[in-house]
Amino acid sequence: MISVKEAKNIILNSTQNFGIEEIPFIKSVGRILKEEIVADRDFPPFNRVSMDGIAIDYKAFEKGQRAFHIEGIQAAGSKQITLQNSENCIEVMTGAVLPNNANTVIRYEDVTIKNGIATITIDSIHENQNVHPKGKDGKVRDILIHQNKKIAAAEIGVLATVGKSKVKVAKQPKVMIISTGDELVGVDEIPLEHQIRRSNVFTLVSLLERLNIPSETAHITDDKTVLKQKIETYLQEYDVLLFSGAVSKGKFDFLPQVFDELGVEKLFHRVAQRPGKPFFYGQTNNCIVFGFPGNPISTFGNCLAYFYPWYYKSVGIEMQEKTAILTEDVLFKPNLTYFLQVKLSDKFGHTLATPIKGNGSGDLASLVNADAFIQLPNDKSEFKSGEVYNVIRYR
Amino acid sequence: MISVKEAKNIILNSTQNFGIEEIPFIKSVGRILKEEIVADRDFPPFNRVSMDGIAIDYKAFEKGQRAFHIEGIQAAGSKQITLQNSENCIEVMTGAVLPNNANTVIRYEDVTIKNGIATITIDSIHENQNVHPKGKDGKVRDILIHQNKKIAAAEIGVLATVGKSKVKVAKQPKVMIISTGDELVGVDEIPLEHQIRRSNVFTLVSLLERLNIPSETAHITDDKTVLKQKIETYLQEYDVLLFSGAVSKGKFDFLPQVFDELGVEKLFHRVAQRPGKPFFYGQTNNCIVFGFPGNPISTFGNCLAYFYPWYYKSVGIEMQEKTAILTEDVLFKPNLTYFLQVKLSDKFGHTLATPIKGNGSGDLASLVNADAFIQLPNDKSEFKSGEVYNVIRYR
Repeated sequence: MISVKEAKNIILNSTQNFGIEEIPFIKSVGRILKEEIVADRDFPPFNRVSMDGIAIDYKAFEKGQRAFHIEGIQAAGSKQITLQNSENCIEVMTGAVLPNNANTVIRYEDVTIKNGIATITIDSIHENQNVHPKGKDGKVRDILIHQNKKIAAAEIGVLATVGKSKVKVAKQPKVMIISTGDELVGVDEIPLEHQIRRSNVFTLVSLLERLNIPSETAHITDDKTVLKQKIETYLQEYDVLLFSGAVSKGKFDFLPQVFDELGVEKLFHRVAQRPGKPFFYGQTNNCIVFGFPGNPISTFGNCLAYFYPWYYKSVGIEMQEKTAILTEDVLFKPNLTYFLQVKLSDKFGHTLATPIKGNGSGDLASLVNADAFIQLPNDKSEFKSGEVYNVIRYR
Repeated sequence: MISVKEAKNIILNSTQNFGIEEIPFIKSVGRILKEEIVADRDFPPFNRVSMDGIAIDYKAFEKGQRAFHIEGIQAAGSKQITLQNSENCIEVMTGAVLPNNANTVIRYEDVTIKNGIATITIDSIHENQNVHPKGKDGKVRDILIHQNKKIAAAEIGVLATVGKSKVKVAKQPKVMIISTGDELVGVDEIPLEHQIRRSNVFTLVSLLERLNIPSETAHITDDKTVLKQKIETYLQEYDVLLFSGAVSKGKFDFLPQVFDELGVEKLFHRVAQRPGKPFFYGQTNNCIVFGFPGNPISTFGNCLAYFYPWYYKSVGIEMQEKTAILTEDVLFKPNLTYFLQVKLSDKFGHTLATPIKGNGSGDLASLVNADAFIQLPNDKSEFKSGEVYNVIRYR
């Protein structure tokens, strides 16, 4: 049995590269950018008026002039016009090009206009005010977004601005999620007394959707021959197999043996953690196998603790560690890393983690009341209120 | 001009109810639950074995017996069998029903099995160990998820478990996003010198996608007649209109006047904030109108600061306030609430906010380097490193 730290190292050292694909930019939210996004022109592309008002030549103001004959209007989206007489002004709109020969904009609030004459009503203005100079935010060919950024709404705006209607992103792995266990029936079925409905595959589908990874699901009966036959096919067809169940010490926990017979290299089996001790991790040449224990909280927590960082590293991102402050003492004696469900709250810039009392790894309902796992290390057994530990959020 | 606080109050007092719809549970992630989810049976539904091993009658152990003849196997998913002789044992698998007449499970690790006899190798066990008793996590008809919960992966697992293949959620508003501004061209076009590409509608689409709200987009030219005609139709057909641009003091900022002529009740226009001062907010009997200023950061920030809480309250959720600790002094003199872009980081359970130097409200590229806005109130102008303020995250 290896430690959580060792398990995580092994997982981060067996990441894969799924390649790159080009997709419409508007579909790219949540995906990992795989090209540098460069400015196709200066940002802004012209001396841009940033207030509605009048544009003048500052020299005239400096000489004491306050009343300016209005020569014309420069609207946003119109070709640049020219201030013909430096003692006149041009009305200008936000987003417009600053007219030729003008250099300073006075907003309407500081001007009165009567009979075609704009009179400045304040004494203090400065040259170039309310002008957003060409190239100030970025020069043509500047890198605006570096590759390996997770695309969100802000990046969508930049992609649109530079005309990247298609964008290169990391391809997603092809994932199959497989449940085992003869006690499981479908969501639409009425279980007999000794049966329960399938739930883990659906939580896994949802956890992968958070990463924008589509997935397929299957259920295989606890029959070794059938398991072996189906898994052999899946190992060929998918980049990743996620299993829920059949990796522990039970008589019908055939998976580790089946993996072995199918040539899956075991990278580890059993991790010193609760929940999720029987976790299996292995690989073939072209497929990674996560064998999560079948208890709902084990499957859920292990997917977050292991699949997530494996995926992020595979597509080029390092997951930021999050921390939180325990609000209650916790006693946990086994020599295991304890992933404890907590409710997070925010107070004065502090993240507080309050343990949620569950009933062990079968208690899916308690996950509803929590929103993270706090990771309590195995090298001690008393965890005090006020101490800080890593947390894995799931909302 | 009203304060940010007043504006937010007005917005939260003009929320709408879009009704309820029933959708497949697996599509419900991110939606707001509109029914109580109750246990259809006890949780667990039977005395559930929680370790692979043997099940015995504890009394036999208490009397000193350590070697037990194996009567049979109780697999997960099999009908409950009965321990016929209280001095024998039954092999049991995780997830199985505890056999009749047995009450205690000893895991395989603590047993040796030879010639059909299981011998317990430890001295200390306790009655009922490794059994997850029927109904311990919840009783039939208990409420497992309360309504108005935002559905995430944990809730998906519970919905599957109780057989809710369809689930009632808040309907989403029907939203149209409209850009104005004659300087705008499409993402696929090559802009002339005085033109720029449309970007705000796409950032708005993405910000709404984060809320699982689908939206449509349109662009209207800066022509008052066309604007009026199109908006009249949209006001009839949509629950919400989001505008970007044409709400300021420019000669072609026709929207406030058009709204007035179309009978849109102005709830406010202009808020004491930067960015986004010219923000317009109004309503008709059946439509809410958000008129965001056209600068990219104004549109982006105002959508987060106003549309998000309006939406969440409309569907039944109160947004939790988040806070962060400034890492640098900030000086901001105008009597305005300042929404400043910050990069958040996590250190020892503290959330730190480091200001990102942008070039004003036109600088979309600076949003890429930040991940939140910190909200600095207008009642002071010096904000010190170490002070705590509200933040609005966008990643």
